[in-house]
Amino acid sequence: MITVIGITADNLVHTDIDLDATDLSAYKWIWADFNEPSPSEVKYLEKTFHFHPLAIEDCLQILQRPKLDYYDDYTFYVTHHVREEGRDLFKEELDFFVSEKLIVTFQLAHSKEVAYVQKQLLTQHNAENWDPYFIFYRILDQIVDNYFPLIHDIEDRLAQLEEDNLNKTTAAFIPELMESRHLLLGLMQTVNPMRDLLYRMLNSQHLEGVRKRRSYFSDIHDDLLKVSEMITSNREVTTDMRDSYLSLNSHQTNNVMKVLTIITSIFSPLTLIAGIYGMNFEHMPELTWKYGYFLAIGLMFGIGLAMYRWFKKNGWF
Amino acid sequence: MITVIGITADNLVHTDIDLDATDLSAYKWIWADFNEPSPSEVKYLEKTFHFHPLAIEDCLQILQRPKLDYYDDYTFYVTHHVREEGRDLFKEELDFFVSEKLIVTFQLAHSKEVAYVQKQLLTQHNAENWDPYFIFYRILDQIVDNYFPLIHDIEDRLAQLEEDNLNKTTAAFIPELMESRHLLLGLMQTVNPMRDLLYRMLNSQHLEGVRKRRSYFSDIHDDLLKVSEMITSNREVTTDMRDSYLSLNSHQTNNVMKVLTIITSIFSPLTLIAGIYGMNFEHMPELTWKYGYFLAIGLMFGIGLAMYRWFKKNGWF
Amino acid sequence: MITVIGITADNLVHTDIDLDATDLSAYKWIWADFNEPSPSEVKYLEKTFHFHPLAIEDCLQILQRPKLDYYDDYTFYVTHHVREEGRDLFKEELDFFVSEKLIVTFQLAHSKEVAYVQKQLLTQHNAENWDPYFIFYRILDQIVDNYFPLIHDIEDRLAQLEEDNLNKTTAAFIPELMESRHLLLGLMQTVNPMRDLLYRMLNSQHLEGVRKRRSYFSDIHDDLLKVSEMITSNREVTTDMRDSYLSLNSHQTNNVMKVLTIITSIFSPLTLIAGIYGMNFEHMPELTWKYGYFLAIGLMFGIGLAMYRWFKKNGWF
Amino acid sequence: MITVIGITADNLVHTDIDLDATDLSAYKWIWADFNEPSPSEVKYLEKTFHFHPLAIEDCLQILQRPKLDYYDDYTFYVTHHVREEGRDLFKEELDFFVSEKLIVTFQLAHSKEVAYVQKQLLTQHNAENWDPYFIFYRILDQIVDNYFPLIHDIEDRLAQLEEDNLNKTTAAFIPELMESRHLLLGLMQTVNPMRDLLYRMLNSQHLEGVRKRRSYFSDIHDDLLKVSEMITSNREVTTDMRDSYLSLNSHQTNNVMKVLTIITSIFSPLTLIAGIYGMNFEHMPELTWKYGYFLAIGLMFGIGLAMYRWFKKNGWF
Amino acid sequence: MITVIGITADNLVHTDIDLDATDLSAYKWIWADFNEPSPSEVKYLEKTFHFHPLAIEDCLQILQRPKLDYYDDYTFYVTHHVREEGRDLFKEELDFFVSEKLIVTFQLAHSKEVAYVQKQLLTQHNAENWDPYFIFYRILDQIVDNYFPLIHDIEDRLAQLEEDNLNKTTAAFIPELMESRHLLLGLMQTVNPMRDLLYRMLNSQHLEGVRKRRSYFSDIHDDLLKVSEMITSNREVTTDMRDSYLSLNSHQTNNVMKVLTIITSIFSPLTLIAGIYGMNFEHMPELTWKYGYFLAIGLMFGIGLAMYRWFKKNGWF
Ligand SMILES: [Mg+2]
Ligand SMILES: [Mg+2]
Ligand SMILES: [Mg+2]
Ligand SMILES: [Mg+2]
Ligand SMILES: [Mg+2]
Ligand SMILES: [Mg+2]
Ligand SMILES: [Mg+2]
Ligand SMILES: [Mg+2]
Ligand SMILES: [Mg+2]
Ligand SMILES: [Mg+2]
Ligand SMILES: [Mg+2]
Ligand SMILES: [Mg+2]
Ligand SMILES: [Mg+2]
Ligand SMILES: [Mg+2]
Ligand SMILES: [Mg+2]
Ligand SMILES: [Mg+2]
Ligand SMILES: [Mg+2]
Ligand SMILES: [Mg+2]
Ligand SMILES: [Mg+2]
Ligand SMILES: [Mg+2]
Ligand SMILES: [Mg+2]
Ligand SMILES: [Mg+2]
Ligand SMILES: [Mg+2]
Ligand SMILES: [Mg+2]
Ligand SMILES: [Mg+2]
Ligand SMILES: [Mg+2]
Ligand SMILES: [Mg+2]
Ligand SMILES: [Mg+2]
Ligand SMILES: [Mg+2]
Ligand SMILES: [Mg+2]
Ligand SMILES: [Mg+2]
Repeated sequence: MITVIGITADNLVHTDIDLDATDLSAYKWIWADFNEPSPSEVKYLEKTFHFHPLAIEDCLQILQRPKLDYYDDYTFYVTHHVREEGRDLFKEELDFFVSEKLIVTFQLAHSKEVAYVQKQLLTQHNAENWDPYFIFYRILDQIVDNYFPLIHDIEDRLAQLEEDNLNKTTAAFIPELMESRHLLLGLMQTVNPMRDLLYRMLNSQHLEGVRKRRSYFSDIHDDLLKVSEMITSNREVTTDMRDSYLSLNSHQTNNVMKVLTIITSIFSPLTLIAGIYGMNFEHMPELTWKYGYFLAIGLMFGIGLAMYRWFKKNGWF
Repeated sequence: MITVIGITADNLVHTDIDLDATDLSAYKWIWADFNEPSPSEVKYLEKTFHFHPLAIEDCLQILQRPKLDYYDDYTFYVTHHVREEGRDLFKEELDFFVSEKLIVTFQLAHSKEVAYVQKQLLTQHNAENWDPYFIFYRILDQIVDNYFPLIHDIEDRLAQLEEDNLNKTTAAFIPELMESRHLLLGLMQTVNPMRDLLYRMLNSQHLEGVRKRRSYFSDIHDDLLKVSEMITSNREVTTDMRDSYLSLNSHQTNNVMKVLTIITSIFSPLTLIAGIYGMNFEHMPELTWKYGYFLAIGLMFGIGLAMYRWFKKNGWF
Repeated sequence: MITVIGITADNLVHTDIDLDATDLSAYKWIWADFNEPSPSEVKYLEKTFHFHPLAIEDCLQILQRPKLDYYDDYTFYVTHHVREEGRDLFKEELDFFVSEKLIVTFQLAHSKEVAYVQKQLLTQHNAENWDPYFIFYRILDQIVDNYFPLIHDIEDRLAQLEEDNLNKTTAAFIPELMESRHLLLGLMQTVNPMRDLLYRMLNSQHLEGVRKRRSYFSDIHDDLLKVSEMITSNREVTTDMRDSYLSLNSHQTNNVMKVLTIITSIFSPLTLIAGIYGMNFEHMPELTWKYGYFLAIGLMFGIGLAMYRWFKKNGWF
Repeated sequence: MITVIGITADNLVHTDIDLDATDLSAYKWIWADFNEPSPSEVKYLEKTFHFHPLAIEDCLQILQRPKLDYYDDYTFYVTHHVREEGRDLFKEELDFFVSEKLIVTFQLAHSKEVAYVQKQLLTQHNAENWDPYFIFYRILDQIVDNYFPLIHDIEDRLAQLEEDNLNKTTAAFIPELMESRHLLLGLMQTVNPMRDLLYRMLNSQHLEGVRKRRSYFSDIHDDLLKVSEMITSNREVTTDMRDSYLSLNSHQTNNVMKVLTIITSIFSPLTLIAGIYGMNFEHMPELTWKYGYFLAIGLMFGIGLAMYRWFKKNGWF
Repeated sequence: MITVIGITADNLVHTDIDLDATDLSAYKWIWADFNEPSPSEVKYLEKTFHFHPLAIEDCLQILQRPKLDYYDDYTFYVTHHVREEGRDLFKEELDFFVSEKLIVTFQLAHSKEVAYVQKQLLTQHNAENWDPYFIFYRILDQIVDNYFPLIHDIEDRLAQLEEDNLNKTTAAFIPELMESRHLLLGLMQTVNPMRDLLYRMLNSQHLEGVRKRRSYFSDIHDDLLKVSEMITSNREVTTDMRDSYLSLNSHQTNNVMKVLTIITSIFSPLTLIAGIYGMNFEHMPELTWKYGYFLAIGLMFGIGLAMYRWFKKNGWF
């Protein structure tokens, strides 16, 4: 679906624009939004707006890296927004063509951020404050604001996981930790190029529209720096959690094994003694002693106790 | 609470200033301190001082990254101070608006550093030596000086931990080590951006107030470089301590297991011999030998000794 | 084999060119392709085209690093294309000499990318749109497009491997993972220098032919940045998979060992009791008790149960 | 103690200078050395030489990071020298104030390097070749030359450790390795900032005294680059040694455990057979066979041999 | 030994030059080679050539870092060549003083590269093509070409090692791997500074002799980049090999231990049963049953089978 909004010189908002019929140059500026467009709708990118074939190709290619390309009359931006579904993270691409008099948003997959800003423009009745770069700023701000709940979510899961496993050694710990790590990696692959894109925009000589609203785009850049740092630090936390878990787990297992092996060790010589006096030799003097049996039992008890004490003294358990 | 201090042209210190009524422009310079302000007090940021909405938003947002933003008439700074409570580290934000004639400090959570410097200004009776950038320097210096006890504290805990565990293999070692590591990570996330902020201030073309007191701000930068290095080096130390602990622990466990398993191994054949002569076959010639029993005992002793010697020779324990 | 294609001033495509006889300067531009040339064919590089000996040496040397060298009348490029055979990756070198009026492609091993572009030039009948740098762009684009299936292939193998081994601990897992890691390392060694080469081309002051088609070469650079990131991220994934596998595997093995050792431990004292009452002492009062046997069995059962419960209570299995 | 040396215009060396009484400006240049000064001696830094309070504070603060600060009439340097005592490394700070006509050395803890250079100046009778920056160079050169024996010492210890442990698995290996690693870390924390300080001195626009003797200071920088590389490379060596040791140790322990467990496994079924024929059932036909006993022994031998061969065939030991 | 070669204005090659007697300025250019010079020969560096004391000191110091130093009339270069002896790598230093009319080569240990180039100059009878910087290039080219067989050697050893150990777990694997890693580290410490030296030479403003032969020195730089990358990548390979080996080894050991422990576990209850019926109680009803013995054997067989099946079902072996 293509939604075209035109702002007249009197700051009136027109939404009844037909790309084939309406004279776009009559407007102060235009916002054309391609929302999950059909192949025939995609053609307007070239037919009406005369965008460069390489930029159009980038729109249709899945998940380009965030970037900006300068063309003669406009700048082309590739950005990523992120959407969580269940416990999985989906990255989607949102492309922009921006000039003084035109902004084209191209969503291969629906972006709630575009819809939100569109609704604001149509309902706030203050079109005189808006222009293409302000729309671009508002959508970017929405996208970046939406990174925060995702990273907070992961932080909560990690905190929960840490608490749950304080004294337990469950098989589920490592896979859950790895899943959080996987989400962090996925988020990082979107956030870091976005951060670099904003940095490049803020330092570009050619983007008058950004320069005029520098504080605003710089505010987005701040947020991206913050998210990027939170991701890095949370990845460090997962590494520490895994190392801590593994060493505790191995410590506990080793202790159990030691105790069990000690039990077996202590009974080895005792069983041998019992076996010896169970032998059927004809001449075994001890067997006829009156207190032979009790001496044998006492010997076993003595050996067992001595071994136990020796192990204890050596700090083996 | 808002505390406003005005310095007159004669270097008199006025504290009876009402933001709604007093003519601020009559003063040589002003220090307005917002200490855990109520929502209605926050409004003065815009009403009286006309600060930019994005900067005010940054004040209210929790834990922005340390940074500086240039605005037309003032510079806006976000900084972090740190507070230890029990064994936990709390990072708090402290924001500054600084110009030639005005300094506004904004503490969402109370900062003892601001209170300390305020008291000095009011009690030292040397207002002629102070100005907004000097106040800014004094507070920053306090903040950074307060990082040192924290890092020394962690160093002491690590040293204590190392000593305590020289010969012990306690389950508490790894969690305590990880806690120190966690504190170091938290501190690093505050110190490194602070260091970068100071670096940027020292190299800025636009901060006349910093340039004039370069030695002072450079002194703070030195301290931040030092703290940052101490953190990095202590993190390396924790890694080494963990590796060392784990390998020693595993070495010791392995040794214990080897000894125990050797005991069990040695008794295996002896128990078999006892079992053999405990069998009830009718025709077992050895059973009728006069010295059969003693030969059997001797055989056991011989086998046990041979195995012991062989294990010893192989260096197995 | 050497294939020479000449484009006349009228954009006619001549393919009947003999390097010894034809006057090359009569053409608007020339494409000479050396495809697995014989030693005598290699000589034309010097005889006809007068290329620098160091560049010719680089052509013949196996697998130079991707790079560009400026010479007075032409630029010399070393690039890598990649070919998968079975489960193995083969890197091959493809060299270019490019100037305004000449492109020489030198393939020590056959490149399907060159063949593909050659066929397009000969069949599309639009020679007026082509020139040496456009040919260079087309071949590079093919080479880089061919990196994507390789990395997608590795991603599929990793996904397959992850799924296959969710609950299994097969000996094949680690070697297969390491093989994917090995392929990623190999690919990275080609992709990263190619990315750096394109970066250098885009930022060179001396490459008019690249500057005129900047959008096109920049599009290739985008793809290389993307592939390079995919490789890095997949390498991180393999590390995480290995760590996750190893810790799960060790967790499972430890659990099995614990259960088995517990079994052995529990039977140790029971076997001792049986051994004791199998001793042949003359005076063993219990042996004559009416319910001695049943008491002994009961004692064994009681001890076994007590140990089982104690182990269970301690959370040992 | 303060030692003041004055060089007259005639290159005479005066050592009888009283900071309170003598007119320092009468000398061509002055070297004042503060060696473990008392608090009252420290006051001369301000009273006589009028140094900046921040620089004096840096002198008294323990172990600042190596650095240089430009002041109007002099440059202030913080450097580190290192002293080995037993097996421990002590870092000490040595501070310099240097100008054309003055060098002040400030040693909170005694530096043998300063004493050495002082003695040379007093005994070589060639004062015409000396000046403040040459003294500064001589002391720095001594400090850096003294790093080499320390790093060589650590290299020797590592080599010794490697040799000692070729076939042994002693508990002392890891702690000794970690101690060397700890020393390397400590040395690195001094050497790297010193290297950066020299780099900054060599590239400064404001240090005429260094510029004039560039080859000399550059020679010190070379040495620092070399030491820094040696440290990095030795740290890599310790990592490799630890990994190698741990894997060999674990390999050996595993082998021992396998052999021991194999012994226990082989005797399990044999002991069962002996136990079976030791049962007291009235009807056990084998017991009355003439060769029953020998058949049982043969069966045990056969089973033991079969298990041994099967384990051997599987390569289990 | 000092070998001096002088080229006359007529491109005649003189080798009968006496440093004490001959007038060196009569030659177009001179090559003086110090090959393992005696202390008295070293003196000519100062006496005849007037080189700077710091440069001479660098010649005599063992194994300086590769570098270049500009002096007024000449440039001083420190380079490393490498020599393999048995399985060990020896780094040797080769120093150069180069100007328009003079090249001095200084070999503390004999360099076959210098000898090779010297022979070429003396036998090729084309002195008109040579000059000091061309000699410098030729020797450097030899040195760098000699790095390749070393790294190929290590690659072969690694490939051999990987093949040998596909199914074996020998104790020799880790030490051999570590030795290769050690060689790679050693090689890296020579190659990387050499690469940086060539980079600095290519980008220097002061080296006319390099600028004129830029393609040649750039060709050496290419090779160094390549070797450096090969080293890095081979180090990654060794890390992967070690991780792969260790995990396979531990996997295999764990499996063996599991099987052995299972055997012991299964026989524990069976041995208990045998022990029970070997007890000598007077009243044990089962002992008098006609089929008691066979029931007991059957019970043992049943328990053994049940345990085997349960372990199998749980996937424990
Ligand atoms: Mg796209
Ligand atoms: Mg925002
Ligand atoms: Mg927002
Ligand atoms: Mg996944
Ligand atoms: Mg903000
Ligand atoms: Mg904001
Ligand atoms: Mg805030
Ligand atoms: Mg301070
Ligand atoms: Mg202070
Ligand atoms: Mg936390
Ligand atoms: Mg925590
Ligand atoms: Mg200071
Ligand atoms: Mg200070
Ligand atoms: Mg080649
Ligand atoms: Mg492409
Ligand atoms: Mg393509
Ligand atoms: Mg593209
Ligand atoms: Mg494309
Ligand atoms: Mg100090
Ligand atoms: Mg020196
Ligand atoms: Mg010296
Ligand atoms: Mg060695
Ligand atoms: Mg220590
Ligand atoms: Mg030197
Ligand atoms: Mg020296
Ligand atoms: Mg030397
Ligand atoms: Mg070469
Ligand atoms: Mg060569
Ligand atoms: Mg391979
Ligand atoms: Mg080459
Ligand atoms: Mg070459």
